[in-house]
Amino acid sequence: MKSPFQNIGIVTRPGTPEIRPTAHTLIDFLHQEQFTVYLDEDGIAENTVYPADAERCQPVGKTELGKYCDLVIVLGGDGTFLSVAREIAPRAIPIIGINQGHLGFLTQISRDRMIGELTPVLEGKYLPEERILLEVAITRDGEEIQRSLALNDAVISRGAAGHMIEFEVFINQEFVYTQRSDGLIVSTPTGSTAYALAAGGPILQASLRAFTLVPICPQSMTNRPIAVADTSEIEILITKSGDARVHFDGQSYADLHNFDRVSIRRYHNPLRVLHPTDYQYFKTLRQKLHWGEQLV
Amino acid sequence: MKSPFQNIGIVTRPGTPEIRPTAHTLIDFLHQEQFTVYLDEDGIAENTVYPADAERCQPVGKTELGKYCDLVIVLGGDGTFLSVAREIAPRAIPIIGINQGHLGFLTQISRDRMIGELTPVLEGKYLPEERILLEVAITRDGEEIQRSLALNDAVISRGAAGHMIEFEVFINQEFVYTQRSDGLIVSTPTGSTAYALAAGGPILQASLRAFTLVPICPQSMTNRPIAVADTSEIEILITKSGDARVHFDGQSYADLHNFDRVSIRRYHNPLRVLHPTDYQYFKTLRQKLHWGEQLV
Amino acid sequence: MKSPFQNIGIVTRPGTPEIRPTAHTLIDFLHQEQFTVYLDEDGIAENTVYPADAERCQPVGKTELGKYCDLVIVLGGDGTFLSVAREIAPRAIPIIGINQGHLGFLTQISRDRMIGELTPVLEGKYLPEERILLEVAITRDGEEIQRSLALNDAVISRGAAGHMIEFEVFINQEFVYTQRSDGLIVSTPTGSTAYALAAGGPILQASLRAFTLVPICPQSMTNRPIAVADTSEIEILITKSGDARVHFDGQSYADLHNFDRVSIRRYHNPLRVLHPTDYQYFKTLRQKLHWGEQLV
Amino acid sequence: MKSPFQNIGIVTRPGTPEIRPTAHTLIDFLHQEQFTVYLDEDGIAENTVYPADAERCQPVGKTELGKYCDLVIVLGGDGTFLSVAREIAPRAIPIIGINQGHLGFLTQISRDRMIGELTPVLEGKYLPEERILLEVAITRDGEEIQRSLALNDAVISRGAAGHMIEFEVFINQEFVYTQRSDGLIVSTPTGSTAYALAAGGPILQASLRAFTLVPICPQSMTNRPIAVADTSEIEILITKSGDARVHFDGQSYADLHNFDRVSIRRYHNPLRVLHPTDYQYFKTLRQKLHWGEQLV
Repeated sequence: MKSPFQNIGIVTRPGTPEIRPTAHTLIDFLHQEQFTVYLDEDGIAENTVYPADAERCQPVGKTELGKYCDLVIVLGGDGTFLSVAREIAPRAIPIIGINQGHLGFLTQISRDRMIGELTPVLEGKYLPEERILLEVAITRDGEEIQRSLALNDAVISRGAAGHMIEFEVFINQEFVYTQRSDGLIVSTPTGSTAYALAAGGPILQASLRAFTLVPICPQSMTNRPIAVADTSEIEILITKSGDARVHFDGQSYADLHNFDRVSIRRYHNPLRVLHPTDYQYFKTLRQKLHWGEQLV
Repeated sequence: MKSPFQNIGIVTRPGTPEIRPTAHTLIDFLHQEQFTVYLDEDGIAENTVYPADAERCQPVGKTELGKYCDLVIVLGGDGTFLSVAREIAPRAIPIIGINQGHLGFLTQISRDRMIGELTPVLEGKYLPEERILLEVAITRDGEEIQRSLALNDAVISRGAAGHMIEFEVFINQEFVYTQRSDGLIVSTPTGSTAYALAAGGPILQASLRAFTLVPICPQSMTNRPIAVADTSEIEILITKSGDARVHFDGQSYADLHNFDRVSIRRYHNPLRVLHPTDYQYFKTLRQKLHWGEQLV
Repeated sequence: MKSPFQNIGIVTRPGTPEIRPTAHTLIDFLHQEQFTVYLDEDGIAENTVYPADAERCQPVGKTELGKYCDLVIVLGGDGTFLSVAREIAPRAIPIIGINQGHLGFLTQISRDRMIGELTPVLEGKYLPEERILLEVAITRDGEEIQRSLALNDAVISRGAAGHMIEFEVFINQEFVYTQRSDGLIVSTPTGSTAYALAAGGPILQASLRAFTLVPICPQSMTNRPIAVADTSEIEILITKSGDARVHFDGQSYADLHNFDRVSIRRYHNPLRVLHPTDYQYFKTLRQKLHWGEQLV
Repeated sequence: MKSPFQNIGIVTRPGTPEIRPTAHTLIDFLHQEQFTVYLDEDGIAENTVYPADAERCQPVGKTELGKYCDLVIVLGGDGTFLSVAREIAPRAIPIIGINQGHLGFLTQISRDRMIGELTPVLEGKYLPEERILLEVAITRDGEEIQRSLALNDAVISRGAAGHMIEFEVFINQEFVYTQRSDGLIVSTPTGSTAYALAAGGPILQASLRAFTLVPICPQSMTNRPIAVADTSEIEILITKSGDARVHFDGQSYADLHNFDRVSIRRYHNPLRVLHPTDYQYFKTLRQKLHWGEQLV
């Protein structure tokens, strides 16, 4: 096979040994087609690949994927895809997701059609798509204490205490409002079909250059979701934190104190996602959300 | 004054020394009218009454209010009212709420009109209203481990972790659904204008004999608020608890484990709330929710 | 068969000749079991029964069903059921609904299991359920100009003009609010899973003695759905009518003028619906709303 | 005064003679500053300017405003602003709105501060803002039968009949879904705080290059608002029209038949709105929506 790619990383969903046959089939195919295959070390440690497959591939840590690979294939669900995306975004490595039987918003190729769908992609026939990420910085007492990425969302929310938190929101230095609520979701288009949707947010077309701010159970009924340009700088000043936290893609978090500032902007690199050439964005939404099909 | 009441308890909002002049005025008035006045011990300890006022009244613990008093007057906000309501409900003592300048759903008489509004009430001219409470029992491994009351709501919710919880809901032993969400609010009519409203629930007229089940950010968009008769037994079986808790009126809580059962039913005693005779239920809602006024 | 019933009315869904074989099977069965069968004249006229079946049954107008029958069986969908329900409610005749392949909220027995499900019902083994109806009166210039029933809902709404209407709402003579919106749905529990749900209303358990008032696209975001006891008298005074109408179950309507009063209360007779003895209310909701199933 | 403008059009809100003193003050000021003033003929005919003021200005039809004026000042509310905006958008003439005492989303300068706020604007010190408009084409039997503009929204909705309509939605020729509902709002950011908000849509920051599609009471609860890039071509194919219509800014409309296609895209010219230099977009939203103010 003539391919624009050479070094391919595979990341398998943690805790799912039933993924091993799929990984085996994929590794076989990639070796046969002369690709160099890198395997996520966590997958090896967790036995989500067969030992023999681990031996015939190069082990690599998730944070090193971007250094050695020019394409990453995720075997798993949207959660695994998200965790890999944040790692490789700084290197602009393309990514592609294979689901394990359950259609994902991000892992749209099914295991059963994996080889057939991947073949043209590896030959360079694919539909590239850029997805924006959030870069979130937390400032305490004038000093930046943490910086994180998120592909879906940054979620500021109350912790276990039964009390709402309070904060002020600024967009491009302009004061928007003081809010009392369970929290605020700042979501990319990618995240707009995840937690933000459960909280009442709108769906943002994947290619829209925008973020949404979706309040979680706001005390005031006029605090409605707002969509802003992805060039906006969003700042949230925590005024009554309780045991508030900010979560990144629901996978990592930081504690928040009173008067912490959470600054959110678009990360300079978008994520590059590859799709088969017959990919239709709304088809996935239609299937996932049980939308009405066209009458024939 | 001829009054159906004799022993009157006063509870002041904790942490608000500015309430002392109001308490003083009220105690003066009650003593002048020959009532015996009991003062909440916490208020005395927290200096929300003047020492001289504390000395001329009987101190009493919140849990003992129902034993000594035949009417309880709350000076404070809805939070103070809720905490007293749960204590006195078992004794069926009537309660009346005086707000400190900020109209409450439960504390509708303003400080400025306190004496004028209380006088007819103390003379027996009032509008009595019954508000239902929830009785919540938690069962673990077949054994009841806790039993609590709530006037507003029992809220099962995820804790600080960024993950949804999962549970099964039964109404009168009939299976309703499996839900994946941030939690579930079971609310009385009283609580329907509190947290349940922020989560998208309907307003239940105060006299409606019903509860609502309001999902918090449910993953499935078809999990909508449900109103059921207050004779219903609601049972929630926790199947994936994370660090879930159940909160009672947002003021106390219990941790929940996998396979805990939370049973919720109407408490046998309603709370007896007294209102001035010109009380209009919807007027309070109109003012609190900024509803449209009648055009003259 | 020994049966508490003797005269059975059948109503077939208009405009659906494919219903004829089902009607034929049902008539055969009922005749064999010695019941007298009455056939809705509209069904005969519209050829939704075979001519031979029409000949061997008694023709009857929908408004006469209650006079001759002691049970009515509806073959069709929820729409047909609604139209029959309003006719027979004054006579308190029980009703049972058979769907034509597509599960209805009201027509829960499928065509394929019709005979097996009906047999015990006709033998007197059934679960009776009462559903409340609305009685709606329109008063113009102090005079009542129309009175109608509704099993689902009475919907006051703007007509074809692109402008919101305005009206005042009273509950038990108490003023609630002035509303500017596309309209207001007053719904029974039965109607709470129909149009009211699409407009954002809560689900009312079928047995709850309550109505909901659900605003349609209200200009003010604090105009939220309200549930009130079914003993309430609801009055809507139209103050800016445009080309407003009030619809009854979406099947008939009356025009509304400025200063018309629409009074809505519970109709004195409930509808008596019969169910197979294994009927589970929430099972239908679960299937219709795609709620999560219990994990085995 | 040195001004980049010379010929100024004034449009007064129809049916409001109380606007005459404001118009008088404005005309006085503009004449004194040597501007040529054009007056909307409808305002003259409707007596919303004094006869003497009408005599000393040039009368002009709304459709001719763009031909003679290089700035248009609207005296009235958002409705008047919308109707003028659609007329002048093809000519790219800037517009500025003066409200009559009631803050508008589009008419943000109050009558009382009119001269003080207009003076710097007329001297060329202003904040220009571009607002996108929709261009809507209706095609019947393969032929375009109408083309209209809208600054707020194009609203496809059922008419007076009590039945939902059905249609298919396409974005950039890609099928999105079949929807059954009361209708669909396609809204600009400007319209996102108008009818779309009442129907549950998100707020789009005025500068966001996006439209929203907001379903009106959709039968399926998964039909949620969608935001798409303003470069999108939206096509709606009516499959069950009833007495459906499409409204433009709620001010004009066209009837829709079965199989009509409604095509919606961004109009090539944006509207140019001028603001005082201290204009803050979110301040208007905060005031109109009663959002929480910053705590000092």
